[in-house]
Amino acid sequence: MGAAYSSCSTHSLTFSSQTLFSFPTITTKTSSKSNLESKFNTCLYPTNKISNTHLAKPIKTMAQTSFPCSGLAVKCGKVEEVETQEEGCVRKPPPMFDYHGIDLDLIQEMVYDSLVWSSLHGLVVGDKSAQRSGKVPGVGLVHAPFALLPVPFPESHWTQACELAPIFSELVDRVSLDGKFLQDSLSRTKKADSFTSRLLDIHSKTLEINKKEEIRLGLHRSDYMLDEQTKLLLQIELNTISSSFPGLSCLVNELQRSLLTQHGEDLGLDPKRIPSNSAVSHFVEAFAKAWNEYNNPRAVVMFVVQAEERNMYDQHWLSAVLNERHNIKTIRKTLAEIDAEGELLPDGTLLVGGKAIAVVYFRAGYTPNDYPSELEWRARLLMEQSSAIKCPSISYHLAGTKKIQQELAKPNVLERFLDNKEDIAKLRECFAGLWSLDDSDIVEKAIEKPELFVMKPQREGGGNNIYGVDVRETLQRLQKEGTDGNAAYILMQRIFPTVLPTFLMRDGICHKDHAISELGIYGAYLRNKDKVIMNDQCGFLMRTKTSSSDEGGVAAGFAVLDSIYLT
Amino acid sequence: MGAAYSSCSTHSLTFSSQTLFSFPTITTKTSSKSNLESKFNTCLYPTNKISNTHLAKPIKTMAQTSFPCSGLAVKCGKVEEVETQEEGCVRKPPPMFDYHGIDLDLIQEMVYDSLVWSSLHGLVVGDKSAQRSGKVPGVGLVHAPFALLPVPFPESHWTQACELAPIFSELVDRVSLDGKFLQDSLSRTKKADSFTSRLLDIHSKTLEINKKEEIRLGLHRSDYMLDEQTKLLLQIELNTISSSFPGLSCLVNELQRSLLTQHGEDLGLDPKRIPSNSAVSHFVEAFAKAWNEYNNPRAVVMFVVQAEERNMYDQHWLSAVLNERHNIKTIRKTLAEIDAEGELLPDGTLLVGGKAIAVVYFRAGYTPNDYPSELEWRARLLMEQSSAIKCPSISYHLAGTKKIQQELAKPNVLERFLDNKEDIAKLRECFAGLWSLDDSDIVEKAIEKPELFVMKPQREGGGNNIYGVDVRETLQRLQKEGTDGNAAYILMQRIFPTVLPTFLMRDGICHKDHAISELGIYGAYLRNKDKVIMNDQCGFLMRTKTSSSDEGGVAAGFAVLDSIYLT
Repeated sequence: MGAAYSSCSTHSLTFSSQTLFSFPTITTKTSSKSNLESKFNTCLYPTNKISNTHLAKPIKTMAQTSFPCSGLAVKCGKVEEVETQEEGCVRKPPPMFDYHGIDLDLIQEMVYDSLVWSSLHGLVVGDKSAQRSGKVPGVGLVHAPFALLPVPFPESHWTQACELAPIFSELVDRVSLDGKFLQDSLSRTKKADSFTSRLLDIHSKTLEINKKEEIRLGLHRSDYMLDEQTKLLLQIELNTISSSFPGLSCLVNELQRSLLTQHGEDLGLDPKRIPSNSAVSHFVEAFAKAWNEYNNPRAVVMFVVQAEERNMYDQHWLSAVLNERHNIKTIRKTLAEIDAEGELLPDGTLLVGGKAIAVVYFRAGYTPNDYPSELEWRARLLMEQSSAIKCPSISYHLAGTKKIQQELAKPNVLERFLDNKEDIAKLRECFAGLWSLDDSDIVEKAIEKPELFVMKPQREGGGNNIYGVDVRETLQRLQKEGTDGNAAYILMQRIFPTVLPTFLMRDGICHKDHAISELGIYGAYLRNKDKVIMNDQCGFLMRTKTSSSDEGGVAAGFAVLDSIYLT
Repeated sequence: MGAAYSSCSTHSLTFSSQTLFSFPTITTKTSSKSNLESKFNTCLYPTNKISNTHLAKPIKTMAQTSFPCSGLAVKCGKVEEVETQEEGCVRKPPPMFDYHGIDLDLIQEMVYDSLVWSSLHGLVVGDKSAQRSGKVPGVGLVHAPFALLPVPFPESHWTQACELAPIFSELVDRVSLDGKFLQDSLSRTKKADSFTSRLLDIHSKTLEINKKEEIRLGLHRSDYMLDEQTKLLLQIELNTISSSFPGLSCLVNELQRSLLTQHGEDLGLDPKRIPSNSAVSHFVEAFAKAWNEYNNPRAVVMFVVQAEERNMYDQHWLSAVLNERHNIKTIRKTLAEIDAEGELLPDGTLLVGGKAIAVVYFRAGYTPNDYPSELEWRARLLMEQSSAIKCPSISYHLAGTKKIQQELAKPNVLERFLDNKEDIAKLRECFAGLWSLDDSDIVEKAIEKPELFVMKPQREGGGNNIYGVDVRETLQRLQKEGTDGNAAYILMQRIFPTVLPTFLMRDGICHKDHAISELGIYGAYLRNKDKVIMNDQCGFLMRTKTSSSDEGGVAAGFAVLDSIYLT
C-alpha cells in the first residue's frame, strides 16, 4: 500500500509500494540543493555510453564525476562517521567501497549481467510505455528497477527490525479485536475522509451482526528508516493491506548476491553479508496454512487485483510457487468482477465464478481509486460477510491506518493491547513523533519549523504527503477553515536518513546518483481461534530512491528495489 | 543457421532458426487452399476475447469454428490414419485429443498460465516493435512464440533421429579433414556464390599453411520432417554453424510439461510422454570440456554475435549456466569488434579486448549479411588462424553447406568417410532425394512436376527456397542463361509433413490454426587429436509453423517453438 515517508530530500516523492514504478513528477516549492549533486548524477548505458540523468550530454568516464562528500571511504566494513550537513541531510562517504576508484569496465559488466539476469529470472514488470503490459502477461516486459549494489545497513538495526515483526503482527491482531477502539479512534477521521468512512461502515456492519473472524491471516510490512542523527530505527508506517514486492524483493536479493559472488572480490564485498530473503516462501507457506485451516480441498485462493497492474509478476510469483509447492490454485479478480460473479452461500461460503474461495488476498482495494462506483464497495462488503479468510479483514485494514498508528503512539495506549513490557518498550523505541492536529502546541511548532515535520493525509496511494513550506500553508489554511479538516491528517516527525551514492538501474540504463533507503520487514501472522499457527518475520524489502532534484526544482527522482549489506 | 525446407504449404515461408521471429510476408503465386482453413484459424486473447487470425471480427467460441478434416480423433494415444488429401498435403484428425470438444475455459486458463510462466522463467525474446530490444538486455521483452501443446511424434522416429546425431557429428568431423573433397565439391558453387567463395578462400589459406585443428568442437543440429505418405523421417539439412534455440527449446519443453502436469488429466495427456530436453546442459558441458582442453584458466568463451539480436536470451541462457556451473566467463563480440579489438600472439593465442579466447562460438557469421565489409572477413580469418577452438571451424562450416549435403547423398560417397556399414545405412535412410542441377533428367522432371521439388540456393538465412511454379520458371531461366548459374542451387525432393491443428502463442495472443512441424536434434562433438571426448545426442528443437494462407494468397504464417509428445 502507499507508504509515504519523511526524508531529507526537498521534494515530495514517496515510496509507494504500489506506485514504485510510476512516480508522479511533482514540482516542489522549497529548494535547497547541493550544487555538487548535479555533478554526481550520471547514467550508464549497457552500450558503454555514459550520460547524465537527463540523458543529455554524454560525459567520458564515471571517474570524472566528482563526489560531493569529503573524505574517502574504507574498503568495506567500518563506516566512517561524518560530515558536511545541509538542512538536516547528513552526507557521508560511501561505507562499503570507494566510488571514486570504481572501475568503469567492471560496472559496465555488472550492468549488462544484471539486465540479463533480470530477464532470465523473472525480475520484470509491465513497461508503462507498452499499451497492453498491465493487462496481458508476457507482453511489454521490462526489468524491474533495481539497485546494482546492496545498501550498507547496520546488523544491529537489522536484527531490531526483524524482532519487531511478530510484535507488530500481534499488536494488529489485538487491535483488530477491539471494534470500539477502532471506531472511536477513527470517528473524527470518518467525517473528514470519505474513504475511511466507507471502510468504517463495513466494519460497523460486521460489528452489528457480531461477525467473528476465527481464522485471521495477516501479511504485513512494517517500513522503517534509519535516522542519521539519532541513529534510531524509526517506523514510517505499518502496511496491513497489499504489502507488495514479496516476489521481486527476493529476486533483487538473489541478483545482488549473484553479482557479488561474481565480482565481490574486486569490489571488496562479501556476498555472505547479504541476508537471504524468504518473503515468497513465507507468504506461500502462510497461504497454504490458511487454506488448510479453511479446510475445503476444492477451494482456491483469490487475488483481488486492479484491472491494470504493471506489477503483476510480483503477484504471479506467489501464485506460481503456491501452485508448484502446494498444488493450490489461484484466481485473479477485480472488485467489479467479484461483484458480478460473486455469491454468498447460506453457510457463508464465498463463491466467485462458481469457485469456493478459501483465502481472499487483497492486492487492490487499499486506495479510493479502486472503488470508482458502488459495485466495488458491494464486492468488498460481500467478501467481508463471507467465511473466506480475508487477508486482510476490514479490522486489520483499519488497524493499519495512519490515525491508528498515531493513536497507538500516545502514552499508555499500547498497554491496552499488549502485556509483555519488553515488547511494548521495543515498539515504542521505533515510534517516530506522531501527533494529532488537535495538538495546538505541535501545530504552532510545525508552522514555525515546517522542515521538521511531515503532514500525512489518511488517503493512501502515495504522493499525498505534505512537506516543507506546504506544511505551514496547509496548517494555516486549516486553522482558518475551522477544525473539521484537522482529522484528515496527522503530523509526523520528519526523519533524516543517510544519503549514499548508488547505482540505480531503470529502463536498461544505469544512473549513478545519491539516494536514500527505506527498509520494510514482512510479517506473516495466522491464527485460528486461540491457536497462533504462524507469527514470523518473513523477508524484507529495501527500496532506494534518488534524493536529487534538478535546477528547476522539479523532482527527477525515482525509486528502485534494493537489498541490504550488513555492516 | 537458415534452415529452409520442403513443406506442403503453398507459400515459401521457411523455418529459419535465426529468423523464426521475423518471417517475411511473401506473396505466393500458387494458391490451392482449403476453403475450410479460414474457418479454423482463430485467435484467443488472454482477456477472454477470441477473434480470427487477422484480428478482425471476434467470434464467440472456439467450439463454433469448424474443423476441416473429417473424422474425430480418439482421446490420446493412437493415431487414426486418414484422410482427405489435397495437393499432396495429408490432413488428418488430431491424434491426441478432441480439438472440437476442448473446453474454452481450460484453454483460456492455459493461455494465461503459459504467458505468466514464460515471463517468470525467461522464455523471452526482444520485441521487434521495441526499438532497443535487440541491443540492450532487459528492455522491450516479450514471450517467445510457442505452441501451447506438444506435437504428437512417433517414438520410433524419435529414437531414430536421436541415434543419427552422433553419426552425423562423426561424419562432419571426417569430411572436415578432407580439404580436397570440400574444395573440389564446392569448386563450381564457388563461381556462382560469392559467400561460399569467401569461405573457401579462408579454407584455402588454412590448407596452405597446413593448419591443423587438433581440438575440434561441433554443436550441430540436424533437422528432419516426417513425410506423411512414406512414413519416413527425412533430413532437411544439417546445421554446423549457429545451431540456435538450445536455451529456449528447453524452456518450451518445461513449459509444456508444466501445463500438462496441471491440466493433463482434463486433456487426457500424460506429461511423462514429453521427453526431457538437455540442450542447455549439454551445450554448456561441451563448452566447459572444450575450455578445459584448451587449458588456459584465464581464457574465456567468446560468443560471436550480430550487432542486433532479438534472440539474445537463447544465447544468454548458455552464458549464464556456463558461468554458474563452471565459473567460465563469456564475452560477446561482433565480427567488427573482433576486427577492432582482436590480435594474434606469436603462439597462436587469440586475444580480444585483451582477453585470451579459449572457444569461439559463432552465433553470427553464417549469412552474407553478417559481412557488410572487409572488416568482418578479416575478423573471421583472424579467428581461423588462431589456436582458439572454433565452433565451428571453417571446415565444419563448409561441411554443412547444401552442396556438400547433396554430394554426400551420391552413391558411394559416405563410404569415403565412414567405415561402419550400419551407420552408413542409417544415414542413407534419412536422406531425401538430392540432386545437382547438372542432372538434366531431374531438371526435366522438376520442370514437368515442380510441386514435387524444392530449389535450394547455397545462400543461407531463410526465405530463399523456391517452390511450385517458381521452380519451373527458375529452371527454365537458368537453361537459357547457360549452366554457370546451376551451381548456385541444388534440387531437393519435396517433403509432405502431416498437417495438425495447433494452438500457437504469439505476442500474447493464442492462434488456433493448422500447422506443420520440423524436428531438430542437437549433437555435441568434442575431440582432441585422436581422443573423442564427447559425441552425444543432446536435446532437441521442435518448430511448428502455420500452414495456412489467406484468400489473397499472401502468407500469414508464422513459426513457434514447440516440443514433442511421444506416441
